[in-house]
Amino acid sequence: DTSIVTKEKTSCKNGIQVMDRKNCSFESRITTTNHPLTRKLFEIMANKKTNLCVAADVTTTEELVSLADKVGPHICLLKTHIDILTNFSQDTIDKLRDLAAKHNFLLFEDRKFGDIGSTVANQYSGGAYKIVEWADLVTVHGLPGDGVIKGLVSAINGRTRGCVLVSQMSSSGALTSEEYVENCSKMAENHTYFVVGFVSQSSKSGDPRFILFTPGVRLGKTGDGLGQQYVTPRSAILERGADIIIVGRGITQASDPVAAAKEYREEAFDAYQERIKHSTH
Amino acid sequence: DTSIVTKEKTSCKNGIQVMDRKNCSFESRITTTNHPLTRKLFEIMANKKTNLCVAADVTTTEELVSLADKVGPHICLLKTHIDILTNFSQDTIDKLRDLAAKHNFLLFEDRKFGDIGSTVANQYSGGAYKIVEWADLVTVHGLPGDGVIKGLVSAINGRTRGCVLVSQMSSSGALTSEEYVENCSKMAENHTYFVVGFVSQSSKSGDPRFILFTPGVRLGKTGDGLGQQYVTPRSAILERGADIIIVGRGITQASDPVAAAKEYREEAFDAYQERIKHSTH
Repeated sequence: DTSIVTKEKTSCKNGIQVMDRKNCSFESRITTTNHPLTRKLFEIMANKKTNLCVAADVTTTEELVSLADKVGPHICLLKTHIDILTNFSQDTIDKLRDLAAKHNFLLFEDRKFGDIGSTVANQYSGGAYKIVEWADLVTVHGLPGDGVIKGLVSAINGRTRGCVLVSQMSSSGALTSEEYVENCSKMAENHTYFVVGFVSQSSKSGDPRFILFTPGVRLGKTGDGLGQQYVTPRSAILERGADIIIVGRGITQASDPVAAAKEYREEAFDAYQERIKHSTH
Repeated sequence: DTSIVTKEKTSCKNGIQVMDRKNCSFESRITTTNHPLTRKLFEIMANKKTNLCVAADVTTTEELVSLADKVGPHICLLKTHIDILTNFSQDTIDKLRDLAAKHNFLLFEDRKFGDIGSTVANQYSGGAYKIVEWADLVTVHGLPGDGVIKGLVSAINGRTRGCVLVSQMSSSGALTSEEYVENCSKMAENHTYFVVGFVSQSSKSGDPRFILFTPGVRLGKTGDGLGQQYVTPRSAILERGADIIIVGRGITQASDPVAAAKEYREEAFDAYQERIKHSTH
């Protein structure tokens, strides 16, 4: 699986020359994976020229739908916390799915599943939110061991779904040690049929199959008083190796969210292009 | 805070002789803490003579309410996954609260909050479930750092609430290392106004203020095929130091859940009494 041989920009893994993710274009990474959602996400990013994910941390269906429609043209992914909406209904989901189709982005529910397999299977497919029915991607903590992944997979029922492992957190005092990050990497490598990538503040991994999502991105702020710590889009992409930046309050709380989304999108895609500019892939 | 001096059954912490939780009766531990819910839970356990928590992993309001009414007389705590109910409504909560008052047990939502502070504050107080309005206790992962606790506390709004830190998981391949467990202990000690205890498979800690909740307890089974691993009530209490055992499928899937609840209750309380029998507290 890791024996993707290239002539240039290679790094070494298990003695085999492999492409380094950070030097590769999103287009060139499509063929490195069989995961249909990873492929689809690379296609969206390459065609739409955006590696921006908006974290839609709003608390009503109206705000969520309005935000998704406004920033839709500028994003590859809409990250939701569906469980903070005061007026969630099937209508919320119908509208989100329509907007995802209209603007060509994927839906990413940031549930941070963190329980044993039998429980997360029920949480994923059941309850008020029926997340498996509408969210292309979900976030998962590797903390419970890989039963959490097997549990989610047991609930998919033929749908095209994937998860993103939260291997490192951006908050102050997070307990995601180096060993923890390393164990999440191993877990991902053992479950490539479901794991699309990592939510992390940084990654040394050059594996082109996995997408690195970096939250805690904001221009001109350093923290929020409840432990959140911010980095800029350029720093996230050029210094920390992010493929996709996740921006929440920098866009949702901007006086003009559309203008803010454009600004983050341009800054992030420029940084990505700068990162790969010497690459031949 | 740890300078509780006793004559017998003491262990040493920071050079100060302190009571060892595992040798103390629930009654005697009431005065060691100012946390109103820890005190209330000790009172219930002592008066009602039960250290059984039932994990009500059922998927309809009818099953949940029926189970809570049946096992109510035998438990100190009802653990819910409110987000797996197919027909949740305010009525679910009204009935649960009535049953909690009728049978004298606390409500314990096993949400396993695991996000940054600003997000968990919204997840705790908002959305469809408004957990803060009805759950006495909730579970929390220490993974994001102590911002997760501060975030929850910011949403309490004068209510009497508490959390239980999941410091160790019972599932196969869990990433809760010794260092992780230790960091959760420190986090608890820094937030005694909110943290009631730990969900853990074992604990060396003798701190009488913290209650040890042990899940994955079942008679006559070793696992579930999705990573869950079981221990018996006696082993959980006598060998691993549990104060409260959490029993799910061993009771909910029994042909006679009431008889099963009685059996687990007796086995668990007998084991607890055996553990403290030489104690003078």
